[in-house]
Amino acid sequence: MQHNILYAQSGGVTAVINASACGVIETAARHPTHFGKVFAARDGILGILREELYDLSLEDPAELAALRHTPGGAFGSCRADLGTPESHPEQYTRLIEVLRAHDIGTFIYNGGGGSMLTAAKIAHFARDRGLDLTVIGIPKTIDNDLPQTDTSPGFGSAAKYIATSVREVSRDLSAMAGTSTKVFVLEVMGRHAGWLAAAAGLAFDAEDTPLLLLFAEVPFNENDFSKALQGGVNRHGWCIVVAAEGLLCTDRIFCAQAQQSGVFGHEQLGGLAPKLAGLSRRLGFKTHWAVSDYFQRSARHLASRVDVDQAYACGAEAVTYALQGKTDVMIAIRRTSDEPYLWTLEGMPLDDVADIELPVPRTFIRADGYGITESARRYMLPLIQGEDIPPFRDGLPVFAALQLNLVEQKLPLWSGSLA
Amino acid sequence: MQHNILYAQSGGVTAVINASACGVIETAARHPTHFGKVFAARDGILGILREELYDLSLEDPAELAALRHTPGGAFGSCRADLGTPESHPEQYTRLIEVLRAHDIGTFIYNGGGGSMLTAAKIAHFARDRGLDLTVIGIPKTIDNDLPQTDTSPGFGSAAKYIATSVREVSRDLSAMAGTSTKVFVLEVMGRHAGWLAAAAGLAFDAEDTPLLLLFAEVPFNENDFSKALQGGVNRHGWCIVVAAEGLLCTDRIFCAQAQQSGVFGHEQLGGLAPKLAGLSRRLGFKTHWAVSDYFQRSARHLASRVDVDQAYACGAEAVTYALQGKTDVMIAIRRTSDEPYLWTLEGMPLDDVADIELPVPRTFIRADGYGITESARRYMLPLIQGEDIPPFRDGLPVFAALQLNLVEQKLPLWSGSLA
Repeated sequence: MQHNILYAQSGGVTAVINASACGVIETAARHPTHFGKVFAARDGILGILREELYDLSLEDPAELAALRHTPGGAFGSCRADLGTPESHPEQYTRLIEVLRAHDIGTFIYNGGGGSMLTAAKIAHFARDRGLDLTVIGIPKTIDNDLPQTDTSPGFGSAAKYIATSVREVSRDLSAMAGTSTKVFVLEVMGRHAGWLAAAAGLAFDAEDTPLLLLFAEVPFNENDFSKALQGGVNRHGWCIVVAAEGLLCTDRIFCAQAQQSGVFGHEQLGGLAPKLAGLSRRLGFKTHWAVSDYFQRSARHLASRVDVDQAYACGAEAVTYALQGKTDVMIAIRRTSDEPYLWTLEGMPLDDVADIELPVPRTFIRADGYGITESARRYMLPLIQGEDIPPFRDGLPVFAALQLNLVEQKLPLWSGSLA
Repeated sequence: MQHNILYAQSGGVTAVINASACGVIETAARHPTHFGKVFAARDGILGILREELYDLSLEDPAELAALRHTPGGAFGSCRADLGTPESHPEQYTRLIEVLRAHDIGTFIYNGGGGSMLTAAKIAHFARDRGLDLTVIGIPKTIDNDLPQTDTSPGFGSAAKYIATSVREVSRDLSAMAGTSTKVFVLEVMGRHAGWLAAAAGLAFDAEDTPLLLLFAEVPFNENDFSKALQGGVNRHGWCIVVAAEGLLCTDRIFCAQAQQSGVFGHEQLGGLAPKLAGLSRRLGFKTHWAVSDYFQRSARHLASRVDVDQAYACGAEAVTYALQGKTDVMIAIRRTSDEPYLWTLEGMPLDDVADIELPVPRTFIRADGYGITESARRYMLPLIQGEDIPPFRDGLPVFAALQLNLVEQKLPLWSGSLA
C-alpha cells in the first residue's frame, strides 16, 4: 500500500545537500507502486510542526533534476531541532499528528549528528504511538566531523574549494611578495574541528611549502606561530596562513572571541583572520586576509564530483532502504580502497550514532602542528576528485527554479516553538 | 634586424594577466625573423633596474602556453613604479642601460593607468637618449577604472566570480533565513571605484531583489542603509549586502578606517565587512560576513572566457603593433556592439592616457543608490560571458610550471631603490 515520503533538511546547508534531495526524489519516482508523493518540509523540522509541506509532485521534473547542481537548501533548513521526547513531548506528539494527517510512511532526515539522534527519537516515539514509520537518516556537514561515515557529503566540495582557492591565491601572493604583500591569511569554517583547514594542505604537493595551517585541535601559541611565520617568509619570500575559526587561544577560549589585549594586542569584534593579520603586520609583513564563510559551503561551481555522487547516492539509497522495509538507519559511506578510491553505502543503526564530533586525528597533523601528513593526504585527496560543473547561462550558473507549492493544511495551527 | 622583447607586469595581478603574457610570447614566437628572445622582468620594473631578466626562450613551450590559464603574475609584479625623469633621472638612465645591454628593441608594460604614464615617460626618455625603443602598454586591472578602454582585462573574471558567488550564497542564505542567518555581508575590492560591487548586481535578474550594493561612489548613510536593510529583510526574509572596500563614511574617510564610535559603535581595525555585520546585528539580524580579497582576482577556475580572450588578444596585439613599427601606444578595447558583444582592439597613444580613475557612472547606479540599472547590466553582462576552465589533475587546477632562468648580468649591481 502506498504511503508518502517526507524529506527534511537540517542545520547548515552545503553545496550538495540538494543532490541528496534529488537522489531521494528521483529514486522514489521510479517506484510509483510503492511510494505516493514526496513532500519536503519547509525550513526543516519546523515546517513539519507547522504543517508546511511542499508537494514535489507538482514540480517540473527537469527542475527537480536541477537540484543535483543547486547549492543551498532548496526547501529551507532549520538551525534548531526538537527537544527530547521527555522534555518536549508536545513537539513529538504534533509531529506524529502531521505525519498521520499526510499519510507519511517514510521520514528522511538530512542532517548532522544531532539530527540523526533526533531521527532515532522520532522513530521510537512513532513506534510507541503505533505509527508504522520508516525513518532513514542522510549525513550532511561540511565539517566532516561525523565519526560513523568515511566522509560527510558536503565536505569534499568545501575541501576542493579551499584547496583550489589557496593554490590560486599562492600564484597571486608569490607575484606580489617581492615588493608588497608577503602574508595572506584565510579563515575557514570549523568551530570544533579543523578538517577544512586541513583541506588547504592539499593545495601544495611539496613537503616544505609556505603554508601554515592552524587547526582547532592544536592550541594556538603566539610566539611559536610568529617564529613559524617568520621562518616561512624567510625561506620562501611569502607565506599563506589558513586558520580554522575554532582556533583556541587558551583552554576553552576561541581566539576569534578573545577580547583582551594579551594575545592579539587590540580589542576586536571581527573574526579570527583580521586578528592573525594584525599579528603578521606587527612582524613587519604587509598582509592581506580573507574570510570564505558561506562561500566555502555554497560554491557549487567548484563541487567535487565524488562528493556530488556520494550525496546523490546517499539520497537514493535512503529510498532503497525504505523500499526494502529497513528503518532506523543512517546511510553511511564505507571506504574500501584509497587508490583507486572505492566506496560502498551501508546502513548504520540510528541508535548506534553517537553525537560525537570527530576531530582531525593527531596522525593527520604534522609534528610541528602546522601542516598535514601523508595519511591526511591519502584520506582527503580522493574526496576532492573530479569536477561537476553546473550549466551556465549568460555567464552565470543556472540553478533549480521550483514552484514550492504548500499542501493544504489539515490540522489546527501549531502555536509552539523550537527554542 | 632582430632585437629582443622585454615584458614586465605591474601593480596588483589578476586571474588573466598571464594570458596577456602568453599572447605576447606566443605571437613573438611566430615572428622569429623579426624578434629575438622574449625576456620577462622579475618583479616588474624593479627587475629591470636590478637587471633580473628571465630568459623565456629556455622554457618549455607547453608551460608557456599554460600561462593562458594560470592566475597571478608568473614573473612577479611590482607595487612601486619609477619616479619622474625629473625627480629620478638615475632610474631612467639605469633602465636604458639595461635595455641596451640586453638588446631590447621592444618594451611591453602590462599594468594600470599609472604604469601607462610611466611607459610614456620611458618612451620619451629612451628617444632622448638615442635608443630606438618600441614601447607598448597592455591594460590590466580588476578595478575596471581605466577610462581609455571598454574594459580592463581582469575585471570580467573578477566580476564573474563575484556574481557567481553571490548567486550561490543566496541559495544558502535563503535556506537559513527562516530560523537563523538573515543577512550576509560581502566586502569586495575597489578602493576608489565600485565596479566590483556593481558586478554583484548581475547575480539576480529580477528588479526587486534582496541585494544592497554599497558603492565607493555613494557616501554611506547609516540611517538610510539601516532602513534599506530592514526593508529588504522584511520583504524577502533575507538580504545580501555587497560593499566596495572604498565605501566612504564621511567626505574623505573610508568606513573601513573609521575609528570612532559615531558610525559603527565600536573601534575596529578589521575591514569593512565586520563593521557592516555589526550594524546588521544591532538591527537584530543574525549576520554572516565574508571578505573575498585576493580570491576575487585570482579565481582563475571561474574566469570569464571573454576576459581571457581579451587579455590574450591585447598581448598578441602589442606584438603585432611592434611588428608594424608602431610605438607609444596602449592597446585598448573598443566595443562596437552590446548584443552580440563585439569588440576590436586599437592603439591609444600613451601620451593621451590620463591617470584618471573611472568611477561607476551615476547612470549605472539605481536611484536609491543600492543597485544597478539596466545600462549597467547591458555594459557588464557581456564581460562575464563564457567559461574557460583550466585543466584539473587530481582534483585541482594545474598551472604553468616555469623554470625562470635569469639571464647573465652584464652591468654593475644597481644600488638604488624605487621607494
